[in-house]
Amino acid sequence: MAKILIIHGPNLNLLGRRETETYGVATLASINQQISAMAERAKIHCETFQSNHEGLIIDEIQKHGGSIDFIIINPAGFTHTSVAIRDALLAVNIPFIETHLSNPSKRESFRHTSYFSDIAYGIISGFGAKSYQLAMSEAIEYCTHNCV
Amino acid sequence: MAKILIIHGPNLNLLGRRETETYGVATLASINQQISAMAERAKIHCETFQSNHEGLIIDEIQKHGGSIDFIIINPAGFTHTSVAIRDALLAVNIPFIETHLSNPSKRESFRHTSYFSDIAYGIISGFGAKSYQLAMSEAIEYCTHNCV
Amino acid sequence: MAKILIIHGPNLNLLGRRETETYGVATLASINQQISAMAERAKIHCETFQSNHEGLIIDEIQKHGGSIDFIIINPAGFTHTSVAIRDALLAVNIPFIETHLSNPSKRESFRHTSYFSDIAYGIISGFGAKSYQLAMSEAIEYCTHNCV
Amino acid sequence: MAKILIIHGPNLNLLGRRETETYGVATLASINQQISAMAERAKIHCETFQSNHEGLIIDEIQKHGGSIDFIIINPAGFTHTSVAIRDALLAVNIPFIETHLSNPSKRESFRHTSYFSDIAYGIISGFGAKSYQLAMSEAIEYCTHNCV
Amino acid sequence: MAKILIIHGPNLNLLGRRETETYGVATLASINQQISAMAERAKIHCETFQSNHEGLIIDEIQKHGGSIDFIIINPAGFTHTSVAIRDALLAVNIPFIETHLSNPSKRESFRHTSYFSDIAYGIISGFGAKSYQLAMSEAIEYCTHNCV
Amino acid sequence: MAKILIIHGPNLNLLGRRETETYGVATLASINQQISAMAERAKIHCETFQSNHEGLIIDEIQKHGGSIDFIIINPAGFTHTSVAIRDALLAVNIPFIETHLSNPSKRESFRHTSYFSDIAYGIISGFGAKSYQLAMSEAIEYCTHNCV
Amino acid sequence: MAKILIIHGPNLNLLGRRETETYGVATLASINQQISAMAERAKIHCETFQSNHEGLIIDEIQKHGGSIDFIIINPAGFTHTSVAIRDALLAVNIPFIETHLSNPSKRESFRHTSYFSDIAYGIISGFGAKSYQLAMSEAIEYCTHNCV
Amino acid sequence: MAKILIIHGPNLNLLGRRETETYGVATLASINQQISAMAERAKIHCETFQSNHEGLIIDEIQKHGGSIDFIIINPAGFTHTSVAIRDALLAVNIPFIETHLSNPSKRESFRHTSYFSDIAYGIISGFGAKSYQLAMSEAIEYCTHNCV
Amino acid sequence: MAKILIIHGPNLNLLGRRETETYGVATLASINQQISAMAERAKIHCETFQSNHEGLIIDEIQKHGGSIDFIIINPAGFTHTSVAIRDALLAVNIPFIETHLSNPSKRESFRHTSYFSDIAYGIISGFGAKSYQLAMSEAIEYCTHNCV
Amino acid sequence: MAKILIIHGPNLNLLGRRETETYGVATLASINQQISAMAERAKIHCETFQSNHEGLIIDEIQKHGGSIDFIIINPAGFTHTSVAIRDALLAVNIPFIETHLSNPSKRESFRHTSYFSDIAYGIISGFGAKSYQLAMSEAIEYCTHNCV
Amino acid sequence: MAKILIIHGPNLNLLGRRETETYGVATLASINQQISAMAERAKIHCETFQSNHEGLIIDEIQKHGGSIDFIIINPAGFTHTSVAIRDALLAVNIPFIETHLSNPSKRESFRHTSYFSDIAYGIISGFGAKSYQLAMSEAIEYCTHNCV
Amino acid sequence: MAKILIIHGPNLNLLGRRETETYGVATLASINQQISAMAERAKIHCETFQSNHEGLIIDEIQKHGGSIDFIIINPAGFTHTSVAIRDALLAVNIPFIETHLSNPSKRESFRHTSYFSDIAYGIISGFGAKSYQLAMSEAIEYCTHNCV
Repeated sequence: MAKILIIHGPNLNLLGRRETETYGVATLASINQQISAMAERAKIHCETFQSNHEGLIIDEIQKHGGSIDFIIINPAGFTHTSVAIRDALLAVNIPFIETHLSNPSKRESFRHTSYFSDIAYGIISGFGAKSYQLAMSEAIEYCTHNCV
Repeated sequence: MAKILIIHGPNLNLLGRRETETYGVATLASINQQISAMAERAKIHCETFQSNHEGLIIDEIQKHGGSIDFIIINPAGFTHTSVAIRDALLAVNIPFIETHLSNPSKRESFRHTSYFSDIAYGIISGFGAKSYQLAMSEAIEYCTHNCV
Repeated sequence: MAKILIIHGPNLNLLGRRETETYGVATLASINQQISAMAERAKIHCETFQSNHEGLIIDEIQKHGGSIDFIIINPAGFTHTSVAIRDALLAVNIPFIETHLSNPSKRESFRHTSYFSDIAYGIISGFGAKSYQLAMSEAIEYCTHNCV
Repeated sequence: MAKILIIHGPNLNLLGRRETETYGVATLASINQQISAMAERAKIHCETFQSNHEGLIIDEIQKHGGSIDFIIINPAGFTHTSVAIRDALLAVNIPFIETHLSNPSKRESFRHTSYFSDIAYGIISGFGAKSYQLAMSEAIEYCTHNCV
Repeated sequence: MAKILIIHGPNLNLLGRRETETYGVATLASINQQISAMAERAKIHCETFQSNHEGLIIDEIQKHGGSIDFIIINPAGFTHTSVAIRDALLAVNIPFIETHLSNPSKRESFRHTSYFSDIAYGIISGFGAKSYQLAMSEAIEYCTHNCV
Repeated sequence: MAKILIIHGPNLNLLGRRETETYGVATLASINQQISAMAERAKIHCETFQSNHEGLIIDEIQKHGGSIDFIIINPAGFTHTSVAIRDALLAVNIPFIETHLSNPSKRESFRHTSYFSDIAYGIISGFGAKSYQLAMSEAIEYCTHNCV
Repeated sequence: MAKILIIHGPNLNLLGRRETETYGVATLASINQQISAMAERAKIHCETFQSNHEGLIIDEIQKHGGSIDFIIINPAGFTHTSVAIRDALLAVNIPFIETHLSNPSKRESFRHTSYFSDIAYGIISGFGAKSYQLAMSEAIEYCTHNCV
Repeated sequence: MAKILIIHGPNLNLLGRRETETYGVATLASINQQISAMAERAKIHCETFQSNHEGLIIDEIQKHGGSIDFIIINPAGFTHTSVAIRDALLAVNIPFIETHLSNPSKRESFRHTSYFSDIAYGIISGFGAKSYQLAMSEAIEYCTHNCV
Repeated sequence: MAKILIIHGPNLNLLGRRETETYGVATLASINQQISAMAERAKIHCETFQSNHEGLIIDEIQKHGGSIDFIIINPAGFTHTSVAIRDALLAVNIPFIETHLSNPSKRESFRHTSYFSDIAYGIISGFGAKSYQLAMSEAIEYCTHNCV
Repeated sequence: MAKILIIHGPNLNLLGRRETETYGVATLASINQQISAMAERAKIHCETFQSNHEGLIIDEIQKHGGSIDFIIINPAGFTHTSVAIRDALLAVNIPFIETHLSNPSKRESFRHTSYFSDIAYGIISGFGAKSYQLAMSEAIEYCTHNCV
Repeated sequence: MAKILIIHGPNLNLLGRRETETYGVATLASINQQISAMAERAKIHCETFQSNHEGLIIDEIQKHGGSIDFIIINPAGFTHTSVAIRDALLAVNIPFIETHLSNPSKRESFRHTSYFSDIAYGIISGFGAKSYQLAMSEAIEYCTHNCV
Repeated sequence: MAKILIIHGPNLNLLGRRETETYGVATLASINQQISAMAERAKIHCETFQSNHEGLIIDEIQKHGGSIDFIIINPAGFTHTSVAIRDALLAVNIPFIETHLSNPSKRESFRHTSYFSDIAYGIISGFGAKSYQLAMSEAIEYCTHNCV
């Protein structure tokens, strides 16, 4: 049974409770529920993780390194600053989709660079909570074709 | 009945016949067929257009300006050079998804900037022919909710 | 009898119909009518041309190369991207005024550079449809003094 | 009765006496006379001012702040160096045209940036003494429509 | 009763024990005591927090998000590297003063940029331990006027 | 008896009369009165000076060079352009606080650099008229401890 | 029989009639004649093409994609702006020589970069009409050795 | 008895198990064993520490601040992003060698800058597990000469 | 009788009284005396001028424009900021030597650019008060050969 | 009888013996032989020179300065670093072709700039040993037309 | 018997006689003696070479190209300027260690780039004369394992 | 008896024979004669040296290192490229004047930086052969005051 890990970066635990005009009213819990349901329907195991700690995200990636097939990651504020998470993803060598709720190109110029894009399997950004569902639908397809 | 316009930029007519190791074996015709079928199932009108001419793409956007609800565009080589197509999209003021078959962040540095990303509804790149399907699924959802 | 060519770049055919809060309600037809009337009063021949195609603009400049005395050009989106139109203007060696409806300095940073300014006879920008009239009044004066 | 203030920056008092091949033979006095006559014909009050002192130009702008309707300014050498004059114009909040005799884009690269362009009502440059007349004709039109 | 949160970034726990020639002999405890006394006199609740962990600082900001009125933060080394703390401050949307013991402009060039300054209520830097007192006096004034 | 010089740069004479939404309703006179009162209470002599002329500010700094103990300066528009005032401050070698009413980091990018910050005793910005009071309270403290 | 395609970019149709001091008096027709004669002598088929339209050049490259062995291209003004022609050349994967009549390094700085050089088989520039002959002599040699 | 602290940055716990073609087959445990043995032979106390958490590394440096004589640190991904660890090293003021398994100059351009090199006692990179041994041999020599 | 104008920029009136370790103990008066004596011996008229006001320096250059043969200028802080003085020198078109007491290349990076060097007859810097004497000796030689 | 000097820069003496996959198997001797034969057939004197010493290349250029008509130079590694050789070529004022075996645009970014291109008669690069033959054929043509 | 070549760049012949506070009191002779002794003990042939001439260093590298197994090079001032020595090392294709006595990261910014680091086997810098010994110990180990 | 060394960089041996419109008709011999005569009159020993070889210039500086009091150097083309000569001058630690015949600020932008200016005793440029005499007069003065 294939396994997908979903990683939510810093401050995403506030989703639906803060800055709802920007990020929408969906909470992280509801987003996780939606994509977990998608995974379940596809008979794929799916685990979600959120942390404000760069180190814990690295630990999490390493912990699952040998046992998962695909990663969906929204690095949030770490997108532009964390070489260490990049290195963790390079180390475990698992395909991942970089996803963002909002479109970083519309925001401050320091958000226009990413330490993840050039090593990502694919990139989806700007669709709010839907970004995760699009990513999950592709992750499921990937697993269906590539993981026995 | 909602309408979606899909625009394929320069050289995409060669899909499936050239550089298949990079872009896959799907032809543009088959891609168009797939996403047209998706639209049809959703009872949405969908039109596709490919051109190697920046001017013709601008003409096309203008022509459909008042009658369509959503645009999916893969500007290909024009991504990094055409202010004029950007201006056409700004002028007709229709939400659009910027999509790419490959991940431009993995390629030459001049491909890391886009005249479209900061005004796009959302961005999907790196999934090959699947990029279009993800974009279409989101376009359909958008039309279902926003277009009477 | 002196001759003036007025060239309108991409998307200017939409004037008065789109983004009127930015560009005003005057249509391209009415602008052309106004400046043609000015030319007529000054007994100067005046021809107007609009295209969304960089190549057609180059063709037009070349076609009139030997027979006109002055050019007024609003390169619009091509201002920042077309070396080829610049080269056409250099080749025919006819004095031209670069004009813009809005003030590019107030907009995105990529609009702050121009391939035309350093070879222009003069520059007028920011006055909306009036930019053309100011340019035409100067063009007429130039022709009156320099063209027999 | 509407009022227009014309400000000439540093070294413009030398017009017509120095570097005539670049700036023409018209003196500042004759330029002022021409545009004053234009204003008079339009029943508009017009005041001219020249200084080599950044501080005096700021004082002048402030002095007239509450009583004028439009400013025409050729900041000359201060174009590229004076945030303080920019701030004075922002403070009095009066629309102004930035004008130049020569075309700064044709000269040294440090002349390609301006502290005024992005807050100007419009920009006219490169027509020699005629630049002022074009600016005045637009200033008159502005006052006719906007000032009771 | 209004509440103020004071956040001390990495290595500030060493204050008064290391590099005293640069940062002075006041310990973090004595600084906290001073500003707590100021708050107490003003009948304002005040909480202090220090951590070398970016993640814990984000957690702390989130934890107090709904219950505090003002933040004083010395991000120390995170000033130049943490988009995630910036995002936490944006998310809770509480006014904050960025404060520094030394003047970053006098130090290495990488200390000349800050991820906090452009969203800060105000900035105070260079006064050693006094920087906190100045910030606290302003924080108190803010709370007196704005928090019931 | 210690002496403090307060220098207000260009356009600050307009405070309270222009752009009040940005700079508040306090006039320069009232600000000067407030901080003079603070100085008086502390038995410190305090002199205030405003000019739109870079040269006059330099003259003023030189004039008081040998007789004052501290300077508070808001260089306003000269912050980003005047090496000469910087040099005057270096020459008289008197500690000074750079202060700003608004937060320059929130404004145009050319306001993000300062010719004063790296030689300032300290920096306070963003608190409106309060910026001066915070600076004065620190200046008083400095004089109390360092000037006999 | 081997085939060579020669592509002349925008404005090259004016050769020999405009700016002869820079580009020489040879017309495009005479240049084409010379190199066609060289090809004929070598028993190689050779086709020439000129256009001011980026899109037509892409179409031309695609049309001949499967049937030619070598390309000589002078992209002229498109050298510095057309990613789309670059992509067409990458797609058909035919070796090409980038050639220029004048030496771009001697001209404006924006002419010092090329979207073609790093994927070209070789580069020849600065020899006027002779640049084409040198390129053709190498193209012939290439075909002689590599094309059966 | 002199003491040396060895700090391994993020993802180095995976050594020998991942990306062995790049980093070799030696595990972190074996590396630690080797250099501990070297220290033991030299009668020097040696402690090793690995963490994926920037904050824990800072804590560790602070904890040992007063009791160690030398540090060997491979900051890994934090090399290019952590001002806070740099500040911790500056604060404890203990000489340290920056060491890397691979040669960062051969990798992505963002790895070409380091927040550690300009304050390091020395730098050793590119020798795989041997980098640590070279660093340890120098650390031992340093302690032998400088620590009683 | 030839005439030389010596211009001293801002803060140079403090020479010999402030920062003597950097600029030496010679006062401006003594420097002026020395070089005036040199001129007198050579039967050349020499006038000296110092101002902290950019505008007054421009006025001075203009005033002497038609009657002097050579200028020696130490623009001091204006070296890096005054396009207007540069323009005054260009306007009067008199050869000038740019001179500095200290060597700007040894100081802050913003002192490494000059608005004067590229139009200067020659440059002398770093010799303290001697810089003026070397400049004067060359100015005298110039006048001797070129001015009747 | 016309004379051509061929200069081979550093490491070119290794041609055909090292990195043959990049530079081909032709030795420098064979290349010299080929182009000497071409010159001989054209009744032109030709001299070849190789050195790893920048100074010797300058000496050589100076030595032949008055007696040769054309230079072909492959500056190799000196292309990007030697202003002195550039100056020697400027001094002797002899037309020269810059030639390279490989295409520098395909290599490290520091190889994309040249101290020679903007003063070269023409540039030929990327054809291996053939680059020299193309250059020689053009040099011969030049001499035939220009040297008596 | 394996062979190692040690190359000392310009001015290193002055070691121990000049700037001893920076580079230590060890002479080049003593350094060479130390590392030669190390090589001798390991039964490895070792040759040392110093030159102030870039060309002689290239000659030396070429001369030994086919007969040595490892190079230790301290390019000194050539580190930042010599593409030609880099090319020589690439040509002979022998692994080399780049070594520096001092730490270039602590010095002028132009010393922060190296033409050697990205092609080096490894880098050791900042340990004074010890840098050579560390490099030699690694060179010996390399030869022991790789050279028969 | 004091000693001065004059160093002439590459191509200066051609003075008076080439590019006389730029560098004047004085030969290097006559310049050397003039400044030698100046030295002789001042009872100072003076030696001149010219080379096109960077290495020979370094050797020369080292050779005279312990026995000379002052250096005048015109590094010519090496001004912008030779860290090694800079290092030689730093090593011998002798005050030197950097001098240029022409004014590098008037020439190509790569001539606007110098590896010598920030460590020079003083800089003199733009006076042709007179530059050397001004430098020599200052060198003599220096020796008179500082060398017994």
